[in-house]
Amino acid sequence: MLGSTYSTRDTGPGRPTRHPDDLDVSGRPLHSAVPDLDRLFRPRTVAVVGASDTEGRPNTGITRQLLAWSERVGARLFPVNPGRKAVFGLPCHASVSDLPEAVDLAVLLVADPLPVIEQLGGTGTRFAVVFAAGFAETGEEGAAAQDRLAQAVARAGLRLLGPNTNLNAFERFRDDLTGPAIALITQSGHQGRPLYTLQELGIRLSHWAPTGNEADLEIADFISYFAERQEIGAIAVYAEGLKDGRSFALAADRAARNKVPVVMVKVGRTETGARTAASHTGKLTGSDAVVDAALRQYGVIRVDGLDELQDTATLLARARPPVSDGVVVYSISGGTGAHFADLASAAGLPLPALSDAKQAELHQWIPSYLNVANPIDNGGHPVGDWRGRKIIDAVLADPDVGVLICPITGPFPPMSDKLAQDLADAAEATDKLVCVVWGSPLGTEDAYRTTLLGSSRIATFRTFGNCITAVKAYLDHHRFTSSYRSPFDDAPRTPSSSARKAHGLLSPGRRLSEHAAKQLLRAYGIRVPREHLVTSAAGSVRAAALVGYPVVMKASGPHLTHKTELGLVKTGLTSASQVRDAYRELADIARYEAIDLDGILVCQMVGRGVEMVVGISPDSLFGPTVTAGLGGTLVEVLSDTTVRVPPFSPGTARAMLRDLRGRRLLDGVRGAPPSDIDALVDTILRVQRMAMELGDSLAELDINPLMVLPHGQGAVALDALAICR
Amino acid sequence: MLGSTYSTRDTGPGRPTRHPDDLDVSGRPLHSAVPDLDRLFRPRTVAVVGASDTEGRPNTGITRQLLAWSERVGARLFPVNPGRKAVFGLPCHASVSDLPEAVDLAVLLVADPLPVIEQLGGTGTRFAVVFAAGFAETGEEGAAAQDRLAQAVARAGLRLLGPNTNLNAFERFRDDLTGPAIALITQSGHQGRPLYTLQELGIRLSHWAPTGNEADLEIADFISYFAERQEIGAIAVYAEGLKDGRSFALAADRAARNKVPVVMVKVGRTETGARTAASHTGKLTGSDAVVDAALRQYGVIRVDGLDELQDTATLLARARPPVSDGVVVYSISGGTGAHFADLASAAGLPLPALSDAKQAELHQWIPSYLNVANPIDNGGHPVGDWRGRKIIDAVLADPDVGVLICPITGPFPPMSDKLAQDLADAAEATDKLVCVVWGSPLGTEDAYRTTLLGSSRIATFRTFGNCITAVKAYLDHHRFTSSYRSPFDDAPRTPSSSARKAHGLLSPGRRLSEHAAKQLLRAYGIRVPREHLVTSAAGSVRAAALVGYPVVMKASGPHLTHKTELGLVKTGLTSASQVRDAYRELADIARYEAIDLDGILVCQMVGRGVEMVVGISPDSLFGPTVTAGLGGTLVEVLSDTTVRVPPFSPGTARAMLRDLRGRRLLDGVRGAPPSDIDALVDTILRVQRMAMELGDSLAELDINPLMVLPHGQGAVALDALAICR
Repeated sequence: MLGSTYSTRDTGPGRPTRHPDDLDVSGRPLHSAVPDLDRLFRPRTVAVVGASDTEGRPNTGITRQLLAWSERVGARLFPVNPGRKAVFGLPCHASVSDLPEAVDLAVLLVADPLPVIEQLGGTGTRFAVVFAAGFAETGEEGAAAQDRLAQAVARAGLRLLGPNTNLNAFERFRDDLTGPAIALITQSGHQGRPLYTLQELGIRLSHWAPTGNEADLEIADFISYFAERQEIGAIAVYAEGLKDGRSFALAADRAARNKVPVVMVKVGRTETGARTAASHTGKLTGSDAVVDAALRQYGVIRVDGLDELQDTATLLARARPPVSDGVVVYSISGGTGAHFADLASAAGLPLPALSDAKQAELHQWIPSYLNVANPIDNGGHPVGDWRGRKIIDAVLADPDVGVLICPITGPFPPMSDKLAQDLADAAEATDKLVCVVWGSPLGTEDAYRTTLLGSSRIATFRTFGNCITAVKAYLDHHRFTSSYRSPFDDAPRTPSSSARKAHGLLSPGRRLSEHAAKQLLRAYGIRVPREHLVTSAAGSVRAAALVGYPVVMKASGPHLTHKTELGLVKTGLTSASQVRDAYRELADIARYEAIDLDGILVCQMVGRGVEMVVGISPDSLFGPTVTAGLGGTLVEVLSDTTVRVPPFSPGTARAMLRDLRGRRLLDGVRGAPPSDIDALVDTILRVQRMAMELGDSLAELDINPLMVLPHGQGAVALDALAICR
Repeated sequence: MLGSTYSTRDTGPGRPTRHPDDLDVSGRPLHSAVPDLDRLFRPRTVAVVGASDTEGRPNTGITRQLLAWSERVGARLFPVNPGRKAVFGLPCHASVSDLPEAVDLAVLLVADPLPVIEQLGGTGTRFAVVFAAGFAETGEEGAAAQDRLAQAVARAGLRLLGPNTNLNAFERFRDDLTGPAIALITQSGHQGRPLYTLQELGIRLSHWAPTGNEADLEIADFISYFAERQEIGAIAVYAEGLKDGRSFALAADRAARNKVPVVMVKVGRTETGARTAASHTGKLTGSDAVVDAALRQYGVIRVDGLDELQDTATLLARARPPVSDGVVVYSISGGTGAHFADLASAAGLPLPALSDAKQAELHQWIPSYLNVANPIDNGGHPVGDWRGRKIIDAVLADPDVGVLICPITGPFPPMSDKLAQDLADAAEATDKLVCVVWGSPLGTEDAYRTTLLGSSRIATFRTFGNCITAVKAYLDHHRFTSSYRSPFDDAPRTPSSSARKAHGLLSPGRRLSEHAAKQLLRAYGIRVPREHLVTSAAGSVRAAALVGYPVVMKASGPHLTHKTELGLVKTGLTSASQVRDAYRELADIARYEAIDLDGILVCQMVGRGVEMVVGISPDSLFGPTVTAGLGGTLVEVLSDTTVRVPPFSPGTARAMLRDLRGRRLLDGVRGAPPSDIDALVDTILRVQRMAMELGDSLAELDINPLMVLPHGQGAVALDALAICR
């Protein structure tokens, strides 16, 4: 699947060419070129294949809309239709072969686009858009048709938007709005409509890319393109599925390097959502935990609702970088301040107290019995007179304050109108972010429509929740990008010496025994207990002497997964006679249960520590991923694990531990010493290397438990399971 | 604190009188009378103390507003002010003593209300409202002044709203709106404003009770009163703190019995929120986990944002009871359906598939390649013609469908206007709930303002999230109330024989040793291991013989909390010599660590099971509460516990276990047998009885671990800690 994606992308003119040193050790690309989509959005010439001006036909409405759009963007339009001489007064051509010149863009309104794409080959046409449905979204047959279309597109040397897309790219975008714009990418036209409508509130939208089935151009291509454009302040995405994990990661990496925020609704949090999405555009949603991890690794801001997508994208597109992380809440009501502070701190947006000096300054204008530490409660009255503006200016003048949020829950004109005006005026005079929540359920009030929405310097929200989500994303994104370093810069390109050793240990299509899996770990420098595999009682006694008492003995075989439950583990054996007895007992059980053994392991006893799990799991979109979590029965029940997509940095490996609910265990609780976290992080990174180097042959790896010993003593893989492809 | 609440409430005419058999065994009331507040909201006569008509004075505006309101509700108004002969043309009285008749309501606009309240005593005045601030919200001195005010109110034989309240109760309520109304209770005027504004969208609001500092009348009183009124469909509450846990519980219980939904924002999820709220109205927010549990026990719907409060209260006030739990999503876009289904199922709102027959019926009008199982994707076009209404009617005719949700994410008039009209028409013709999400950020469209909001049969939302929250609350609330049985009906009134035994074991102000705490458990029929407390090595050997080998030995003393870490626990002792050695070792450690022992416990070894914790914790609002959770170090780190407020039923005790993330452990994992859940529930109920009977003398109890053995084998308290008051 990955391979076919490359070959499609690598064929034909206008596509990025790739050199071997552009690949990491897993064979995945480390760079992606930015497709030049200028002539898709701003073509000089447009052919409309299937153009019509017969009233009542669907293509007539589309042709009319394309005509209007061509006029707006200054393109010449060529109707193509074998049955007509002219369409809307323009001379009509029988086929694309008859066009008088190469066109930048061919819009295909025909049910079967394949022959037209083939005719376009070699004509110099740069882009095609295909509206027709009935491809991958309908099942296997449609998917095959889509593959044929993609191959034809590649042969024809052009780039395709669609199939199963629509007119959204050719809507009217207001050109009277200035300032940073939102660029929109959607896999469903209707789902993009609310963001498009934002233009009527004065929010600038520059592009809308409805990617449809993504037979060729995919979300990643548009993210890359938009991330390079000066006028774009943020990219808003509605996605049901991703076409390829790595191409998405490279695009998100580009946006992160360029500090362009990407805000995304990604369907697929649940089985139901994933299934429904698949039947809509024929895309897999991927494992949601993996997608979520990948988004976080590249600083993509994931939101749930379209309202959050609107509000967060708008704020991130328009707000200047924060001069400070300090958020202050200012309200005409102590209740509003308390409520907002409660929700903000629950969401992880702290409201640090203002300095004593600043509080004293505010108390010049605000009665002394009111709390002005943060949130600031002015009691209402001061907003009605000259004090209102003074207070706002004094707060904004505080160097510790980067964001001022004023929640106005309901319209109460004597206060709220004046407050809105003061905020709008103050926002003009500061570089800091001023946010207002206008909580009235009407939203028709002048203070809202004219004063607040009329100010390009104020970020206006309708709910506390969306304001908190957006401001947190704003601060987080700036923090993330200011220290961002692309993991692709440091990704390994050539196999390590471990890889060569490891390949000899793998057996295609087989599960490895515990002993064999541990050999694999050893090849990658991951510590395992001293151990010997024996096949006789006498051998086990000799092995115990070599390993050193006390020892653990375990049955080892390729299909053993619940050794403890089966009684196939004996711990704390301290003498030769105990070892001999244990050998016989284990062999008996295995015989009785008819279990295929490769022998009995005699292992060193390892000291007590914290039991973790570290492993490799395959993902249909992103390939091999690395998981880490707490081990042991209890925590298995609580499934306290986290995942990352390679390549990732040592800092990211360390950050994985912060995701775990039980992370305090590693710090040492109830008198236990702190764990050797460095050794744990080192193990995660070695497992990542295995994932990248062996991913083609190793389907799964599970170190469980990895015993993380006290600080300075390392981490030891006590048991491991490996499944080869 | 609890006591003083009673005495205040029990004094004076017009207050409920209480008999001893109205109390449960903890001394808390089992019933609360519904205060008659008719004459507070609809007085026949109103005195305004501090009335003014001098322009520019704050009291003038208030007097004017009260005059207008009096006119609306048909009350006669008497201005009271020693400095005036007339106010706004009405004869003014020098003091309340000079009033020509007893008034239903006295509104006090004076800075010091205390003398006026005293003068009102014996005049037959029924209600007073005090606007003055500077009471409990300002600190200790203010709290004392508030206590004096409360006492004066009780002596005067009237009921008080305030102090620190405002004019909200006397706002204009639209009387042209019909159907079930929302009644609003707030502890902050500004926070109620958005709900008040809902009237402009056609949502009926019947009352607004701004409770202020609640020196007398509290949230609970208004809930009780509103829960008895026919015109009220739902009660919406904005609360920062509760005055008393039991009175709130009794009010919420009344609402649950009457099937009147209570929807509530309760500040205090975080430390920050709790602190800020305390400085606003001087109320404690209480432990949030306990408040949250209490709300769930009585079916109170807790929401986070004021927007959710509006939307949920509106739906629950107006929607008829569901005829089925089946929720169907219908959309003009497969993307919208997938997105909505994803969020809905993530929120626990399942979308069951329609029957094959119903799907076939829908495919008469919807192309066969579109998914109509649920969500239903009509592809857009059918809404534009006669098919649109057919589809909606066919869905609503399905007996498995109780709720139809149609998310219209953005305005696209050719489709969305017709769709809105069809939905409004269909909603008129059905008893089922029809919800529409109008996702346009504008909200000024005719289809929204006129068609949707103009229909009293359609519930309209602006976001997917709020629609899902409200519909889930609607279905949950009906399910809850249909099987609701008040726990107060079955609450114990007289002490058990256990209580008498237990009281002899408590030592006021002391911690009990493990041994003593276990005696307490034994008195309540909670199983503990066979054990003896010994004070000599010889005694320990004799005890071991009585208990039966193998034994556990543990130091026992009142201040021992980390026995294992100190080496003061020895397990698996199998011989007299091991017991003798263990005795000496434990005694040595205790001497070395200078620990005060009451002896050494020689205990029966108990089989393996699941370690749980069950205990009693005090709460400042609700009194003793019962907690249960998973035990062991790992789960302590993950703090997987849950809490309930007594009295609660066996069903509630069982439901506690469903709250635990690690509940699967009790079912038996990794080959372990299922646990004796009946014994665990029985232990929780016995601990509840202890909490109710001993709460005055027992500050805390912690059974940790309670070893829950395999099914049929019971549960044993292996260790316990008890702290007496």
